[in-house]
Amino acid sequence: MAPIGAAEYAERAKAAYARAQGAGADVVVLFDDQYIQYFTGFVFSPTERPIALIVGPGGERALFVPLLELEHAEALADVDRVVAYPEYPGEVHPLELLLREVRRLGVGRRTIAVDHDGYPPVMGYAPVKLGELAGVGTSSFSVALDEQMARKSEHEVALVRESARWGAYAHRLLQAGTEPGLTEDAVVGAACAAATRAMNESFGVPYRQRNKWVRGALAIYRGQIGPAGAFPHALAHDATFQVGDTLVTGAAADVWGYLSELERTMFLGEPSAEQRRYFDHMLALQDLCFTAIVPGAAAASVDLAMRAYVDEHSLWPYWRHHVGHGLGQRIHESPFLDLGYRGTIEAGMVLSVEPGLYVPGLGGFRHSDTVLVTTSGIELLTDYPRDIASLTIDV
Amino acid sequence: MAPIGAAEYAERAKAAYARAQGAGADVVVLFDDQYIQYFTGFVFSPTERPIALIVGPGGERALFVPLLELEHAEALADVDRVVAYPEYPGEVHPLELLLREVRRLGVGRRTIAVDHDGYPPVMGYAPVKLGELAGVGTSSFSVALDEQMARKSEHEVALVRESARWGAYAHRLLQAGTEPGLTEDAVVGAACAAATRAMNESFGVPYRQRNKWVRGALAIYRGQIGPAGAFPHALAHDATFQVGDTLVTGAAADVWGYLSELERTMFLGEPSAEQRRYFDHMLALQDLCFTAIVPGAAAASVDLAMRAYVDEHSLWPYWRHHVGHGLGQRIHESPFLDLGYRGTIEAGMVLSVEPGLYVPGLGGFRHSDTVLVTTSGIELLTDYPRDIASLTIDV
Repeated sequence: MAPIGAAEYAERAKAAYARAQGAGADVVVLFDDQYIQYFTGFVFSPTERPIALIVGPGGERALFVPLLELEHAEALADVDRVVAYPEYPGEVHPLELLLREVRRLGVGRRTIAVDHDGYPPVMGYAPVKLGELAGVGTSSFSVALDEQMARKSEHEVALVRESARWGAYAHRLLQAGTEPGLTEDAVVGAACAAATRAMNESFGVPYRQRNKWVRGALAIYRGQIGPAGAFPHALAHDATFQVGDTLVTGAAADVWGYLSELERTMFLGEPSAEQRRYFDHMLALQDLCFTAIVPGAAAASVDLAMRAYVDEHSLWPYWRHHVGHGLGQRIHESPFLDLGYRGTIEAGMVLSVEPGLYVPGLGGFRHSDTVLVTTSGIELLTDYPRDIASLTIDV
Repeated sequence: MAPIGAAEYAERAKAAYARAQGAGADVVVLFDDQYIQYFTGFVFSPTERPIALIVGPGGERALFVPLLELEHAEALADVDRVVAYPEYPGEVHPLELLLREVRRLGVGRRTIAVDHDGYPPVMGYAPVKLGELAGVGTSSFSVALDEQMARKSEHEVALVRESARWGAYAHRLLQAGTEPGLTEDAVVGAACAAATRAMNESFGVPYRQRNKWVRGALAIYRGQIGPAGAFPHALAHDATFQVGDTLVTGAAADVWGYLSELERTMFLGEPSAEQRRYFDHMLALQDLCFTAIVPGAAAASVDLAMRAYVDEHSLWPYWRHHVGHGLGQRIHESPFLDLGYRGTIEAGMVLSVEPGLYVPGLGGFRHSDTVLVTTSGIELLTDYPRDIASLTIDV
């Protein structure tokens, strides 16, 4: 399982530049760490020191970094050139030096396509507008980038598929290790450590985190244990497992920067009639969403199908969010399976499908699977039992 | 050690509103998670679903969240009101609903003071400019916020001080656990787990992460082991410790959302003459920086003092960054001890002091201490040996 290679990074940059040019810009300048990673493979955490990627004619890429990241960028970024500025704040503002680099490419005279109009105010960085400094207009390019990122290459799909395999492995360890009286941290810690070790040994190369959200192979509860699971995005609080708990899991793995999403609703001991009822509704919702995902359909239509079922069964008090979202290098990304999203589902997209129900006092009910849109429907990339019997933990 | 309380959050919001009003705005709208946490205690990770804080007349605070964060925000945010919108993308754009809330307060008719002009393009969110939507001007408020955050209250200093204690404890475990033949992950994992457990037990309440960068009590190497330490911000790569390695550490703890910074240069076995030479220069640099920090001095003057020494001793090939930065809730923040920073050092500021030298093929040389600026100079909040004998690990 090889990482994304130089040819694919170059191709991405070339395609983005062509699109920006078609929209009237002569250069693309990006500040967002996720966009920069997508075009270069360079992984970093934004600080007060701006990092930017210049994409010029033909997709030529210059990565602009502070001096303290120079060797790091030269070793790890897939770009044509790394350019370093001394320091921020520094004697000359980094964005002025950035513009000199832009002009050295003979561009930046027409519109500059940007994600942000200048570096955002991270960690006390005092923002300066790039367009004002350059004396030209800027145009927002993030929607175009998101559309590009939504269409996955075969290599990207292979990485997500491999991620799903390791996520499922971590999940099996999590399920096997969960029992009444143990604490969340202990169970999650053991599953993540063992799965990560196995994945790293399997890959046989030193592991270096390349995904912003996921480190190694993981399976977690995020605090969705018992009644606290009624918060869709609960936070870990080291709960102690108890007989009768409804559990909501999350599993994934970082495979060369790509991830997947696997979530399951489980029960600690035989579920009650009430737990069964919400589980069955949730499963029916996910099934109908799977069926609704076909290439050419409006993304909104999947959410509408879910909503019709929620209406019919009077489940609105338990509804909290839309059906799902794109994912890949990012844990969430467009398209969104939401009635307010205007786009269309296309073959090659990778989506999470995760309608949920949240019952105060009882807990959360949500499976999430990662699917690939094919020419005729979907292929599940996550392979893990979905039925209630398989997800009931004996006590 | 209590968390920041309701009165202090309210006072912060009141002061910020007064400042915005003085600059011609009638409302403040913030999207950045760190600014929102500073005014509310609410901790979240930005996704494609916008979260915003409205600060209105008198510092009244309304937190604007997606429905799936409603219960979470109501339980944990220190605000006057939580307002939820259904979903993003949704039928009506969240920023339109946000503006309705702003207008309900009778404001948003003059300039809106913002950190970003609209929510930034996170995870596929398609940006919309708040000012254009509102039909009024926006003004950038982040520099004013950063200035406010730079002046720490006594409570904030107490939290940083407590963080420094636990960081030092984790560091002692790290130093004691490091030996040739062990790997970075094993040594770091053991030190962090034990220190975090001790801190949580000491606090006696369930731990919930409140700091974006630091979880529990930690002491790490970030890959700065042997020659790889010459990258100032190296990445963990699970190196195996070897006799002769120069090591650079980092330690901190999350105490109710506040952190500190402690870093040390250590040696695995007796240092060579070359290692001693750079260590001695680094220590001299840090000493002169400590002396240069006095209230009323220009922040730049500390960097200039460091630079004069670097000049005198021909150390420029090993220089990579400025002297230090503010910190508190954020791991880096203004003021920056950098020749390009225009501000003044004031009593009550909390700063890292960390001049570094980076020697290709040999490693990194950097101590970092967290200091409080007093009325006459500094007080070290980090308490850990700085001398070469104490930092040499017997092999």
